[in-house]
Amino acid sequence: MSTFRTVKGFRDFFPEECAMRNYIAETWRVVARRYGFVEYEAPVVESTDLFRKKSGNEITAQLFCFRDKADREITLRPEVTPSLARMATARQRDFKKPIKWFQIGPCFRYEEPQEGRGREFIQFNADILGDNSPAADAELIALAIDVMREFGVSENDFIVRLSNREIWNTFLADQNIAPEHTATFLSIIDKIERAKPEDTESKLAKIGLTTAIVRGFMASADENHSAFAELKANLTARGLWSFIKIDATIVRGLAYYTGTVFEVFDLKHNLRAVAGGGRYDKLCALMSDDNVDMPAAGFAMGDVVLGILLKRTPGAQMKLTSALLAASSIDAFVVIADEAQRPHALASIQQLRAAGIRIDYAFGSQKVGKQFQAAEDRKARFAIVFGAEYPEVVIKNLIARSQASVPAANLVDEVQKLLQEPAIGPLIA
Amino acid sequence: MSTFRTVKGFRDFFPEECAMRNYIAETWRVVARRYGFVEYEAPVVESTDLFRKKSGNEITAQLFCFRDKADREITLRPEVTPSLARMATARQRDFKKPIKWFQIGPCFRYEEPQEGRGREFIQFNADILGDNSPAADAELIALAIDVMREFGVSENDFIVRLSNREIWNTFLADQNIAPEHTATFLSIIDKIERAKPEDTESKLAKIGLTTAIVRGFMASADENHSAFAELKANLTARGLWSFIKIDATIVRGLAYYTGTVFEVFDLKHNLRAVAGGGRYDKLCALMSDDNVDMPAAGFAMGDVVLGILLKRTPGAQMKLTSALLAASSIDAFVVIADEAQRPHALASIQQLRAAGIRIDYAFGSQKVGKQFQAAEDRKARFAIVFGAEYPEVVIKNLIARSQASVPAANLVDEVQKLLQEPAIGPLIA
Repeated sequence: MSTFRTVKGFRDFFPEECAMRNYIAETWRVVARRYGFVEYEAPVVESTDLFRKKSGNEITAQLFCFRDKADREITLRPEVTPSLARMATARQRDFKKPIKWFQIGPCFRYEEPQEGRGREFIQFNADILGDNSPAADAELIALAIDVMREFGVSENDFIVRLSNREIWNTFLADQNIAPEHTATFLSIIDKIERAKPEDTESKLAKIGLTTAIVRGFMASADENHSAFAELKANLTARGLWSFIKIDATIVRGLAYYTGTVFEVFDLKHNLRAVAGGGRYDKLCALMSDDNVDMPAAGFAMGDVVLGILLKRTPGAQMKLTSALLAASSIDAFVVIADEAQRPHALASIQQLRAAGIRIDYAFGSQKVGKQFQAAEDRKARFAIVFGAEYPEVVIKNLIARSQASVPAANLVDEVQKLLQEPAIGPLIA
Repeated sequence: MSTFRTVKGFRDFFPEECAMRNYIAETWRVVARRYGFVEYEAPVVESTDLFRKKSGNEITAQLFCFRDKADREITLRPEVTPSLARMATARQRDFKKPIKWFQIGPCFRYEEPQEGRGREFIQFNADILGDNSPAADAELIALAIDVMREFGVSENDFIVRLSNREIWNTFLADQNIAPEHTATFLSIIDKIERAKPEDTESKLAKIGLTTAIVRGFMASADENHSAFAELKANLTARGLWSFIKIDATIVRGLAYYTGTVFEVFDLKHNLRAVAGGGRYDKLCALMSDDNVDMPAAGFAMGDVVLGILLKRTPGAQMKLTSALLAASSIDAFVVIADEAQRPHALASIQQLRAAGIRIDYAFGSQKVGKQFQAAEDRKARFAIVFGAEYPEVVIKNLIARSQASVPAANLVDEVQKLLQEPAIGPLIA
């Protein structure tokens, strides 16, 4: 067994995994910015109390928490929303409402690692603070949908399951169920599709309900329910309502959400939720010293389930593959066929890089064949050969298998021109 | 005092600080990729033993280390090089040599926070493994110089102080100083410019040396010393030797570096080193289970001193300012002057965003003046007005103060065309 290896549940990002992580993060960033969201980041280490305050004392079992050398109770954050509430309420006067912020960064959980579920993951959070309208909820759901589409995951590949906590509050009031049973009831609903019917029946009976009444209500809570009216009109205007399926079993974090709740699910691979979120109008007051009352809604999307989905979805694979290729490839490899030309080659390499062109070359004298092999290994589009003919240099197109001789003084201009052309190989190899 | 605040030494990244962090990271990434480096990342949590192995038991005093719930000794990494050595040696057969890798991510130290020196910082690491030539050292120094220049920090603003451990090894051998005194001696050299001359003299006397002999040697260890010959030829060919100043007092980490060492310093503000690195040919064997012998060199640059320097350097300020503006601004703000047109506006917003255009708008009915104010606050280049004239919409250029009316069906094409034009305001306001 190796002495040196990663800590349990943590990942190395070798170049291919790092390129995938960057592709996912950059796609999140680009789409969020189209929606007018602005990026922020919180510390990865926070006071353990911050998470206890939001989720209760029992949360510490799942937290990556510890005491530092000064005996402070601190935690590698499991999520970013409590930090966001802390930050936004502390400086709420400095920012115009609604605040539309997004964040991308690592989160941690202390759970037994499983396939596709380690102790560190990257999460994307998008939140709107200071607006309590269904229009803000719609903006977030539209963003989640467009993020998925930007990855090449289409209407055939995923769905947004939507509900609203208020429909259950109304139901419970209509059934004269005491408010102290709400949490128990929502926990039954959360599990209703996975639990044994007889267990559900007996649990419901204890709070004075039957499966038949609950199921009947669920069937009636469709897209025509008044709780969804504004959201439906808004997403219909955007052409996005077809991505939505009303599903009253979506309840999510019990003490936390107050209105709209939604989750993004793939349609073909039965994976865990790709993203989830909703409205949490009471959190900011809870997380601020001076009880700042700020309505809020948001969602989070992790990199792990999403990554599995991208690899399995044909429409997403080509985008992913070209992103990975772009991250590891270079534009041109400089081949030094005559060592006497190395100083000239270094001067040109410096100029090419200064012009933004990605260049590699061999550090020492090597056979020309080996240098061309390195050019292929690095997936270079061009090889630029410095030989005895200097100041004439040869630019070889490694895809089209064509070549041209140019004066070194024109090299940067020529390479820039060639890089503008589409990278197409010969039709017949 | 606030209940909810950051843990001691940790930073919130509000949008402006986050944009600065992203600008720094993206600049590092772009220049490293021009140099043919490929990005990787290691876990932020590593076994404490990994750092003890590299730096000895006494290092734990400065480590952000703790025990997890399973009593594992783990550490929030203070640096990335030990992880790199672990990763590269574990899979060395999978990668062609030389391995040119870079990394960007958070590191942690457990020290008393000072101005500009917290417990979490972002670091850029670039390393070349599997090549022991001065050409590889030159490639790294050139990369460090070009990173600084890409930020707009010029030859007048910074310098690279260069030395080589071997010149001191030769000196000590020539002076017949026993190898067990090497570490003591290098530690004296490291402090020679800051220590009291009489302290230096007495410390040197204990190992059989005098300040006069040492100073005499330092004056002779200039750019014509054979240890620098290849490096000088290489960097001269690139036109970069003028950035270099030989400085034999640069010794850096005592047990770690084996050859070339260098540090990047600003010339005007007397800040701590912006970056530092060198050759560490023995680390890979130390950090691998099967004693993989792989020569290596690299450097690290942090975001904190660099950030201070960018804010103070005139040539860097404009690039920084426009990066910050670009991160928070949008392309166009959609003004809904007639609420009846909101569904049409939402449809167009969806199309504009799908075309990659950054759009914001008000979620609810608002006076037109307030919406234009929001457009200015968001630094939008254009306002797009949906009024009673729909399907005609008005595009207002908020910088040039011009406007045009276009059919909604042509809106995306028109806005794309306008965004291609340079964003220049009227000459007379």
